[in-house]
Amino acid sequence: MSGKKAFRPKARRPRGFEDKPASVLRAERRLIEAAVKVYEAWGFDPLQTPAFEYADALGKFLPDEERPNEGVFALEDDDNQWMALRYDLTAPLARYAAENFQDLVKPFRRYQFGDVWRNEKPGPGRFRQFIQCDADTVGAASPAADAEMIALAAEVMRGVGLADGEYVIRVNDRRLLDGVLDRIGADSPETRGRILRAADKLDRLGRDGVADLLGKGRKDESGDFTEGAGLDTAGTDAVLAFLDATGGSRAEVINRLDGIVGGTQSGAAGLAALSDIHDALAALGVGEDRAVFDPSIVRGLGYYTGPVFEAELLATATYDDGQPIQFGSVGGGGRYDDLVSRFTGQAVPATGYSFGVTRFATALAALGRIDGDDARPFVIVLNVEKDQIATYLGMAAELRAAGLRAEAFLGGGNMGKQLKYADRREADFAVIVGGDEREAGTVTIKDLKRGADVAAGIADHGRYLEAQKQEAQFTVPRAGLADAILKRVNNNV
Amino acid sequence: MSGKKAFRPKARRPRGFEDKPASVLRAERRLIEAAVKVYEAWGFDPLQTPAFEYADALGKFLPDEERPNEGVFALEDDDNQWMALRYDLTAPLARYAAENFQDLVKPFRRYQFGDVWRNEKPGPGRFRQFIQCDADTVGAASPAADAEMIALAAEVMRGVGLADGEYVIRVNDRRLLDGVLDRIGADSPETRGRILRAADKLDRLGRDGVADLLGKGRKDESGDFTEGAGLDTAGTDAVLAFLDATGGSRAEVINRLDGIVGGTQSGAAGLAALSDIHDALAALGVGEDRAVFDPSIVRGLGYYTGPVFEAELLATATYDDGQPIQFGSVGGGGRYDDLVSRFTGQAVPATGYSFGVTRFATALAALGRIDGDDARPFVIVLNVEKDQIATYLGMAAELRAAGLRAEAFLGGGNMGKQLKYADRREADFAVIVGGDEREAGTVTIKDLKRGADVAAGIADHGRYLEAQKQEAQFTVPRAGLADAILKRVNNNV
Repeated sequence: MSGKKAFRPKARRPRGFEDKPASVLRAERRLIEAAVKVYEAWGFDPLQTPAFEYADALGKFLPDEERPNEGVFALEDDDNQWMALRYDLTAPLARYAAENFQDLVKPFRRYQFGDVWRNEKPGPGRFRQFIQCDADTVGAASPAADAEMIALAAEVMRGVGLADGEYVIRVNDRRLLDGVLDRIGADSPETRGRILRAADKLDRLGRDGVADLLGKGRKDESGDFTEGAGLDTAGTDAVLAFLDATGGSRAEVINRLDGIVGGTQSGAAGLAALSDIHDALAALGVGEDRAVFDPSIVRGLGYYTGPVFEAELLATATYDDGQPIQFGSVGGGGRYDDLVSRFTGQAVPATGYSFGVTRFATALAALGRIDGDDARPFVIVLNVEKDQIATYLGMAAELRAAGLRAEAFLGGGNMGKQLKYADRREADFAVIVGGDEREAGTVTIKDLKRGADVAAGIADHGRYLEAQKQEAQFTVPRAGLADAILKRVNNNV
Repeated sequence: MSGKKAFRPKARRPRGFEDKPASVLRAERRLIEAAVKVYEAWGFDPLQTPAFEYADALGKFLPDEERPNEGVFALEDDDNQWMALRYDLTAPLARYAAENFQDLVKPFRRYQFGDVWRNEKPGPGRFRQFIQCDADTVGAASPAADAEMIALAAEVMRGVGLADGEYVIRVNDRRLLDGVLDRIGADSPETRGRILRAADKLDRLGRDGVADLLGKGRKDESGDFTEGAGLDTAGTDAVLAFLDATGGSRAEVINRLDGIVGGTQSGAAGLAALSDIHDALAALGVGEDRAVFDPSIVRGLGYYTGPVFEAELLATATYDDGQPIQFGSVGGGGRYDDLVSRFTGQAVPATGYSFGVTRFATALAALGRIDGDDARPFVIVLNVEKDQIATYLGMAAELRAAGLRAEAFLGGGNMGKQLKYADRREADFAVIVGGDEREAGTVTIKDLKRGADVAAGIADHGRYLEAQKQEAQFTVPRAGLADAILKRVNNNV
């Protein structure tokens, strides 16, 4: 039985992928527009690389037959080369810069926004496709270029309507920690990697958890054991003291760090960079309240070689139960001088800023700083007499010409069903022209938002209808349709 | 030797994919913005589906081990389900509508723009990733919904700056040809498919080529033979007469077609739809010069079930040799009432419009109707004294605050190299502050566009430098930097 039915596919999204609704998309678009406006003003040009890169260009191992999809979505092209969907926008930029290096106008300043894909186990709120927005400068070794990235991050914060004090950019230089590690004699790359990863968890694990990871190791709640970096107490204390050396003005942090790592070669290089960055930030108008120096900022990615920073939201929203929602880091970046050299063998200085569009937009929407709705009032002309649809379409056209959003309802059903449609579409007005109105040369306009307000206070159905009629519904001559709605909108009746 | 070198990947794009430069991206963005403005005004909301769909949901066969990538980019997920990158935006919409059918506000009006991927043999100008922009109405059977799609196509044309007469929307109904085929007794689905594909080639092959394909078949220039539909002369003539029945007003075409297929059930249904569409278009202000009826419009895709249309650019640009560039069709759409039922078993009426963003934007750029450049003048502050970089950054910030695009040059090199950078970035002004200016409290401004004009007429180097100095270079007090540039911009000196 039902042999045919077996061929009917089930309508479902692939696991870990989402369909984004209008409100989210509009908020994301506003955020991107604000960032683009900043980037363009600063002399960054857009670039769009394709979704696919060759797997080797992404810096991943060439996938094997068994697990071609480790971390990325990869497939084999007709010519037997493995391609993978980009997992960030930095690796494609490095490929682009290397491929076009001779012709590139240097320093090369570009921004790019678009989807990236990660082939990870999907989970609640963990998606395998999301949008990033990056700005990078390739070919400028000066800390001034890093300062620009930090300033861009701060300017985007202003661009989306955040006040100074509602965000902060936390800045560090990777070489400062190198200075500490040189001083305590932690020389093996493996140990240094463990220390870096431990330091990166200060936020999440606190001081004690990091101390465990710097020393013998740590067992988490699930019982899993992470091996430690094996530092002795003096070494652990030195690293923790360094991570703690934040607070106060940028000059104060530099002074404090000078006392800790100023005597090492790496430390001195990092401090010189921070000092130049401070001067540049001051010239760019990025005050002490907008960008601070914080040695606990690590940024997980291994490819950073110098200054690194994180853009953090300080403003909090509140849950329904009054608890504050903290958003934390929404973006970050830093200097990565070795990434292009993977292709060319030639060291090319580069620095950039990247933020996650969906995460940032969600935070801004929760803070009420970005409005997901179209600002124009929305009018739906009901389809009362089916043979009059052309008339209703003409009315919608007239309302659009007056600057409103408008449509004629194209479905069927009675007035109640049509008003429900208008309600679910969050329309501001419904226009009704039935036989009576047509003969009288009038239109009836329902103010749906006002109607909802009126309804809120009334339990009795008779009184409800009467109130609706008196306060939220009015009839005007046909010729005055658009004017009547515009007047009502402008008077905020 | 060079065992290390062997691990250095070559920086190259995957075949058939492109990196898009700023001018193209800005033109595409303007086109999308214009379309979005129209769609939102008409009550369409944005939706974004993910890049991946399950392969069966895309209406493709489940890929086999041998050729998983036939036409689409497909890969097997961890749970052994095949996913594929979407090849258009219609199949994902059908999946979305089916998946959310119960909760959907119907008619469901959505627009979506984004990348689509086709796993085809790459060739010159043939890319495997491109952007589409679609608007669709799901759940409205009325020809008024089709008329809206046609009107949207025409409104987008206006929205991007085309005058009426520079474009036309050609409209047909699939059922009219069905009427012809019923009349001549072409009943088998295979024959009907061949006739449809033959008719679709009228543009490319002309009347004789189509006649061959309707009859015995046709050998193309390469020697390949395409089998014909096998119609006799009377049948071929009947189909060609139908395809020819265009020209004149929409009412005239309807009358003419009534004479040909009015007596058949399918033909009568198609004519009734065109008649309703005409009334709706008239109400929507889409005159006879903007949308015409043309029975030769087929639209290749098999899934259309009723009205179909193509949006055609009539405006021509010219090649350098004076030959006209014709752009032809830039988009199209139609009614597809069976697509959602693939999932649900339940017929759901749907109609839509889709255009290819890159192709359309390229045409508009060639026509000079869409400007790929940022309108704000662009200023580069040269990095003359390296220890003054913070000062230069501050000047750039000041210029941005005045509404200009500005950056401080972050590279090294002498003045000539820096001016060459400014030239390649297409900057409008260069700002120069060396030791002399610093001590005198002034800035020197080079008007680069004016400088290029001045240079054009002079061969002698001495006279060239003198002319530059007099006409394209000026020195002002430091405090007057932004004002001096703004004044020059506004006076168009």
